[in-house]
Amino acid sequence: MKKQQLFVGLDGGGTKTLSVVVDSDGNELGKFVSTCSNYHSVGEEAAKRAIYESISEAVKKSGGSLEDVVEICLGISGVDRPEDIELVGGWIRSLLPNAQYKIFNDAVVALTSGTMGKLFGVVVISGTGCISFGIDHHGNKTRSAGWGPALGDDGSGYQIGFDVLKYVCMAKDETNDKTLLTQALLDKLQVTKEEQLITWAYDPKNQGWHRVAELAPLATECALKGDKVAISILDHHSSALVKFIKSVFTKLNLLNEKEVPLVLAGGNIERDCIFSDKLKEKLAKELPNAVPVYPKCTAGMGAALLALNTFKENKKE
Amino acid sequence: MKKQQLFVGLDGGGTKTLSVVVDSDGNELGKFVSTCSNYHSVGEEAAKRAIYESISEAVKKSGGSLEDVVEICLGISGVDRPEDIELVGGWIRSLLPNAQYKIFNDAVVALTSGTMGKLFGVVVISGTGCISFGIDHHGNKTRSAGWGPALGDDGSGYQIGFDVLKYVCMAKDETNDKTLLTQALLDKLQVTKEEQLITWAYDPKNQGWHRVAELAPLATECALKGDKVAISILDHHSSALVKFIKSVFTKLNLLNEKEVPLVLAGGNIERDCIFSDKLKEKLAKELPNAVPVYPKCTAGMGAALLALNTFKENKKE
Repeated sequence: MKKQQLFVGLDGGGTKTLSVVVDSDGNELGKFVSTCSNYHSVGEEAAKRAIYESISEAVKKSGGSLEDVVEICLGISGVDRPEDIELVGGWIRSLLPNAQYKIFNDAVVALTSGTMGKLFGVVVISGTGCISFGIDHHGNKTRSAGWGPALGDDGSGYQIGFDVLKYVCMAKDETNDKTLLTQALLDKLQVTKEEQLITWAYDPKNQGWHRVAELAPLATECALKGDKVAISILDHHSSALVKFIKSVFTKLNLLNEKEVPLVLAGGNIERDCIFSDKLKEKLAKELPNAVPVYPKCTAGMGAALLALNTFKENKKE
Repeated sequence: MKKQQLFVGLDGGGTKTLSVVVDSDGNELGKFVSTCSNYHSVGEEAAKRAIYESISEAVKKSGGSLEDVVEICLGISGVDRPEDIELVGGWIRSLLPNAQYKIFNDAVVALTSGTMGKLFGVVVISGTGCISFGIDHHGNKTRSAGWGPALGDDGSGYQIGFDVLKYVCMAKDETNDKTLLTQALLDKLQVTKEEQLITWAYDPKNQGWHRVAELAPLATECALKGDKVAISILDHHSSALVKFIKSVFTKLNLLNEKEVPLVLAGGNIERDCIFSDKLKEKLAKELPNAVPVYPKCTAGMGAALLALNTFKENKKE
């Protein structure tokens, strides 16, 4: 009896690490979620433990064993530099001595969630932060944005949430129009007047970029009701996304390709909403050969399919 | 021999507390600088100690005694609410039982640094943060901005510095024009490439809004050399300042007054520079009855003259 071959995809982000196991037809056999695997946040030991647990438990659920794994693709946030990749590679070689492996930044596996494991196209992610990453048919890669909230990144949930706060304060000052955002924000933060935003904003016990990013949905909520200030915020940030997607297309010479998959990922744009609609509208004008798609599976599953595809490619050669 | 009458002004900010003592002709007799007196930052005991030390030492230098003080005006950052004023008022009543006192926010005494102790007009401060405050002939007061970096305040040093960082990252991404700001910023932070800005920006040991505000002068430096990105940053932020100055004029019905002193205070605008020039140019168009002036003395001296003026007014009545 021929030994079963397993293919693993791993998506490691700031909060969780998902591993998915597929067979040689791409059928999902098992998956497991463990804790954060960004070692810049949690340290090497904890990151290694999370990765090992996630892979081992997913393989156990698949009914196979670690020896059956022949190819694994990992996308891990914070893993960019050669020394990062060498470190994580060492962990994988110890755990899975029979497997080929490839290690990417998590933006790469986010791409594969929309291309079902194909490594061609562009992804734009707008969550708390935002980034665009692209790869052409020759394997050339590039990125734009991804600097994080302290350095900019218009188009991110953080910056949209910051603008919600800013325009509510400006409405109070009468330096900009009144807006529905005011009541929506006060309700959300359970305060009764704008001055109380100061206590909320500067409370040292309660900081974190995600707190501001969680206000971004107020902009889509009020824009839906026709609020002009909210609409102008979304206009600004969708244009910013288009700008840095376009720079990825330009740097990779993708402008003249017939069709380029463009995966819209991250909480602010990975489904139909007024913000993703605006984005797609602008893309249709500015980048007509971009084919926007939403993620069709998890990034872990995309990575598993990428592992399978990589294995098949190598066999052909 | 007639007993000497002393008038004291105190300007208490986030880093230092300046007291100035003048005689009944407005001549400076003594001054003293002590530490921070914002009790929200340093606690009540330390704030009280700083205020007592600053006043006592300034009076000692004037050659008089605390009993000679007949009027004192205090402007203290973070002192806004009635309970703040009651607290600080109690301290002053204990120290200076013979004196009348008035307690203001520090923006008020910044105004008096340009009006030489007259409490009429508008002040705009652009330092790390920014604010505009105004008072009319009837004593009506209002303000705009002053929310701090977490809630907006375009026109502040923090936001100008943030834009410097943002546009340098965008130039690197090729999502905006190349700019002289890049080399100026890398030189200032002593790094060789843009990626190193990430380490600088997220270093948990080295945070604080002032760090970003300290980058604002790079915008004026590069704008002077004709850099278009730097010029557009200064254009945006000078327009923001005009917007909230105008809201103060509007809310106080000052638009039809013949002439209204407008004091430009704070490190970014309190002297001739390309940023204050831009601001004055826009003001000339938008608020032709505003008469821009730079501070003519310290805010502590302004407050001392205000104390003297208040005393004279009360005597007349």
